[in-house]
Amino acid sequence: MRIAVDAMGGDNAPLVVVRGAVAAVRDHRVPVTLVGPERVIRQELAQLDAIPVGLDVRDAPSVIPMGEHPSTVLRQRADSSIAIGIDMVRDGEANGFVSAGNTGAVMAFAVLHLGRLPGVDRPALGAVFPTRSGVCLMLDVGANADCRPSYLVQFAHMGIAFSRQVLGVPAPQVGLLNIGEEPSKGSQFTLEVHELLRASGLPFQGNVEGKDVVRGVVDVVVTDGFTGNVALKVAEGAAELVTGLLRDALTANWRTKLLASLLRPALRPMARRLDYAETGGAPLLGVKGAVVAAHGRSTARAIENAILVAARSVDGKLLDAIAAGLPASGGGSEGV
Amino acid sequence: MRIAVDAMGGDNAPLVVVRGAVAAVRDHRVPVTLVGPERVIRQELAQLDAIPVGLDVRDAPSVIPMGEHPSTVLRQRADSSIAIGIDMVRDGEANGFVSAGNTGAVMAFAVLHLGRLPGVDRPALGAVFPTRSGVCLMLDVGANADCRPSYLVQFAHMGIAFSRQVLGVPAPQVGLLNIGEEPSKGSQFTLEVHELLRASGLPFQGNVEGKDVVRGVVDVVVTDGFTGNVALKVAEGAAELVTGLLRDALTANWRTKLLASLLRPALRPMARRLDYAETGGAPLLGVKGAVVAAHGRSTARAIENAILVAARSVDGKLLDAIAAGLPASGGGSEGV
Repeated sequence: MRIAVDAMGGDNAPLVVVRGAVAAVRDHRVPVTLVGPERVIRQELAQLDAIPVGLDVRDAPSVIPMGEHPSTVLRQRADSSIAIGIDMVRDGEANGFVSAGNTGAVMAFAVLHLGRLPGVDRPALGAVFPTRSGVCLMLDVGANADCRPSYLVQFAHMGIAFSRQVLGVPAPQVGLLNIGEEPSKGSQFTLEVHELLRASGLPFQGNVEGKDVVRGVVDVVVTDGFTGNVALKVAEGAAELVTGLLRDALTANWRTKLLASLLRPALRPMARRLDYAETGGAPLLGVKGAVVAAHGRSTARAIENAILVAARSVDGKLLDAIAAGLPASGGGSEGV
Repeated sequence: MRIAVDAMGGDNAPLVVVRGAVAAVRDHRVPVTLVGPERVIRQELAQLDAIPVGLDVRDAPSVIPMGEHPSTVLRQRADSSIAIGIDMVRDGEANGFVSAGNTGAVMAFAVLHLGRLPGVDRPALGAVFPTRSGVCLMLDVGANADCRPSYLVQFAHMGIAFSRQVLGVPAPQVGLLNIGEEPSKGSQFTLEVHELLRASGLPFQGNVEGKDVVRGVVDVVVTDGFTGNVALKVAEGAAELVTGLLRDALTANWRTKLLASLLRPALRPMARRLDYAETGGAPLLGVKGAVVAAHGRSTARAIENAILVAARSVDGKLLDAIAAGLPASGGGSEGV
């Protein structure tokens, strides 16, 4: 097992990526290859006291900027850290790939160079939401802005596999994100999806509403990539608003600052539960490799956790579980 | 001016509705008619020390249950508090209607009995989101699960009118809820809407993402009723999660409880800012009347504020402003 990691991805690369990779190798014994301009990575490694055995470097001369469009990227960036990292997976030199860089580029290279698993029409991006007592996986959160109803049944299959094999949920339950719990509620699209899910034989608990996601009513929530992306970002925004207002209140004057400093240990579990760095990024499910898109603002800890998600996907034989759950007739040709 | 109020709507009716109505009449001099079973309302009023001048009662023998389907309601509930309140607006006995009851029933009666304003194809439900420094109106948040692109241009018109005439924003700016800021991002649907909004002559600032809503990047966010409803409920859920975790942390032991009690005054502005009761419910925009759907869990303060939103809509000549902003050719026939 080996995870290739885009050393140049994210706002704080390569510093935090190198540190996160070092932590994954040293503390969890996950072999990692850092991919990027070799000179830059070596310089970063030279700052360290010790380089753990199992960490190596693969040269990739170019770096894909965050804003660059996937179509341009595919034509012009074969020598980029993302393309070379993905190709290591394709060529069997690595089992997984992690990048905090341009998510569109990661998805484009992964789908085109790795191909889709048998039965998968459209790979989907998953996001792990914190709930009051655990986590909830939502997919798709952005790979497919327009979906056919049948895609969401595949998302449900893939989500169940990830929840069980990687998140360790013994018997994951699935819900359909909708605007009412009754089967008769929703858009034309969700009405069709509801019927398909009900007939699918999957552990489908029916419609769930926006609030139910963080209430942990189900383990896996399926939705189209447009709605899922909006939901993810609205949730981030709302959490940011509340924690921002809390910070304002706690730093208003010396008295509140003093009280806040005394409360800090009690607030730590809450901060930790809400920290996206703990969830380790968004898995791209349905491609032939354990690909994880980490947040652009990833810290070293977020990179470390994203590497662990990729490693657990390999250990848990996630790809086999996805392929086993899907009828091979559902798709499965190579490429896009 | 007079606002009809469904005395029987919401989880805590009629108690909190009567109290909210009394506060609106007494403290803001808004004339209110409570609509519902007269005996029940009179019993509630008999508990009060004084009944303010301007508060009266209209008998409506039946009450629509929360779960009842709009189609059943329309056929069988002409004598309900919602139907009679709406009909008071239609007949000129009231200018606005507020209900914390079955929102589907309120929308159905409002659209069918009041009719749509000239130029409005589909009325939309608005929601006022708190932001770090103010508020942001999102619409549609649930009246139309399936939308045509042109509806969202009308939503933008109506949202601008509400933001200016009722929320007091001098020059409201509009954004389209989308999954990327670039004009090329989004679903087929949002790509079409983007083009229409750009050509509309409205103060359109382009696409906004889920996070931007609570960041207050624009004053009005337009979206289809499916996405908007999910966004609203995800935001409520996320805020509930954070405040729930905060409550857990602050009540963990006697030490944190003591510190929390000392911090309480500092946390009050935050609690107030996040309290939906302060925003006063969801306006139904595009019908011939100032109709406001209050939250099912409304407190007396939420009812009071919903009545004030209806009253400000009347004072601000919201309906004229909506009709003036829309080309009459866009729709405008009576009924649905």
